[in-house]
Order: sequence, then structure tokens, then C-alpha cells
Amino acid sequence: MRYLLSLIVENKHGVLAKISQVITGRGYNISTLSVGPSHDEDTSRMVLAFDCEEKIIQQVVKQLNKLIDVIKVFLIDENNSIERELVLIKIARKKETEESLFRLTQIFNAKIINVNHKTFSIELTAQPKIINNFIDNIRAFGIQDLLRTGPLAI
Amino acid sequence: MRYLLSLIVENKHGVLAKISQVITGRGYNISTLSVGPSHDEDTSRMVLAFDCEEKIIQQVVKQLNKLIDVIKVFLIDENNSIERELVLIKIARKKETEESLFRLTQIFNAKIINVNHKTFSIELTAQPKIINNFIDNIRAFGIQDLLRTGPLAI
Repeated sequence: MRYLLSLIVENKHGVLAKISQVITGRGYNISTLSVGPSHDEDTSRMVLAFDCEEKIIQQVVKQLNKLIDVIKVFLIDENNSIERELVLIKIARKKETEESLFRLTQIFNAKIINVNHKTFSIELTAQPKIINNFIDNIRAFGIQDLLRTGPLAI
Repeated sequence: MRYLLSLIVENKHGVLAKISQVITGRGYNISTLSVGPSHDEDTSRMVLAFDCEEKIIQQVVKQLNKLIDVIKVFLIDENNSIERELVLIKIARKKETEESLFRLTQIFNAKIINVNHKTFSIELTAQPKIINNFIDNIRAFGIQDLLRTGPLAI
């Protein structure tokens, strides 16, 4: 099962290594991770996703809470939070598919943020499952590059 | 100086720890980090920002390129790429400031994605410097929570 953890951590050297060690040390892989500054200079906010069994997740939360540089750990409850993720995609530019590409970006409220002779660059912020869906639809146009932030939750 | 690195890495256990070790092992702090799946199942895309001296950055790139699970490292050139970042902010809801809050979100093309009796939740995707500017402006309204993805670059 996929779990999403949101953490408030001290801006200290090596805190990322300690946190990822708790999860990878148990044999789980962090599938997405976002780390950025919070509104308070001394702390950062981190959101990470990984798959594990239900009985393990509470142990992981407890273990993370014990780390000295971790101020708080939230286990995200899908029903009580809003998730958003950002994706940037570079798509091959072909005359014959241009119209359907435009239509697709309109349907998903995606933005074309750059264009040159060979490629379109597209930006979309949405729920992670909508992003997945957008990627599934756009794959046929020829994805040349794709970057995702992983979900944030508030 | 702030540098932005974009990496293509294998989806292997512990790759994140190895990469962060290269940077923190030299005494530098990773200030923002985004890790998510790419369009290819076997790889992930990672964008990380950190401050270091100009003469160090090429050494770091070389060292990262030597890691077995790192497929490619790009040093992002601001002039030849587009950066985007996502921020979610929770703001105290006060009758007397509501109108100016609405106006501010309009100016920045930010979205109010949730509201209850006590708070507004706001989403903004923009260039990192625009995000900084938005946060500076919105601080006075009373930030209760703030999460940033760190920049992506394409």
C-alpha cells in the first residue's frame, strides 16, 4: 500500500540521509520525495511516498518521530487532505498531432510554457491521479523528457 | 552561489542516500530536492539545489556522474531552461483581510483550492522567484502551513 508522509524537520546537515535510512534500512524504496523550505527559516517541509504493509507504517512513523532533527511527522489521510503535484513534460512537435495535443492540454488545464521547432514544453499542476492520467494520454505524442515533483499534501 | 542539478537515476535501492552523501559529505546542504518517476519505468528524475563555490560545482557533477546508478547529470543553465515550482500555503481566514487576499491570489494567478471557517488553502505554480515574492506578500495574512516542491527545470 502507498503511504504519504509529511514531515517538519530542522534545517540540519544530514537530516535527509537519516530519514531515508529509516525507510530504506527496512528494505522499502522511497518512490517520490519533495523537500523545500517552510515559512519558518529554521525548518524544512518534506513529503515522501513509499509502499509498505499496513502493520509497518506506524512503526516507521514512530521511528521517524524519534529522530532528533524531526519535529513532526504526519501520516497523510487522503480523505482529509488535498494533494497536488507538478509535472513538466517535453513533447515532440509534429504538425499532424498538434491539434490533438492542444485539445488535450485544454481538457486537463495544462499550460504550454515553451515551444521551439522540435518540442513543446508543458506544465500541469493537479492531483497525482490526474497527472498519471494526463501522462497516459500524452504518451502517444512522444515524451522526450518528464519531471514530477511527487505529491505535496495540505 | 546556488546551483541546480537535474539527474536521471536508476530506480535502485539507496541511490538517494549515495547522491546526498556526495553533496553533504563535502559539507554542503541540499536546500531543495524533488524526486519523482520519469516517463521510463526504470528511472527517476531528480532535481536538487544547493549552494557552493563555483570551482566546486564541476567536481560535484563529475563525482555524481561516477556513481553507478546515476545515468546522467545536468547542470541547469538558467538562461536555457524553464524553472517551475509548486507551493501550497494555508492562510488564516479573517474577514477584514479576505478581500486583499483574494486580490493578491488574482495578481499572482494563484488558486484557492480549499476553504473552511478558519483557513484558506492556496496553490501556486510559478518560477521560484515569483513564488518567493508571493510568499513575501502573503506572510502578513498569517501563514499556518507552507510546503514547496523545490524547482523543476526543463
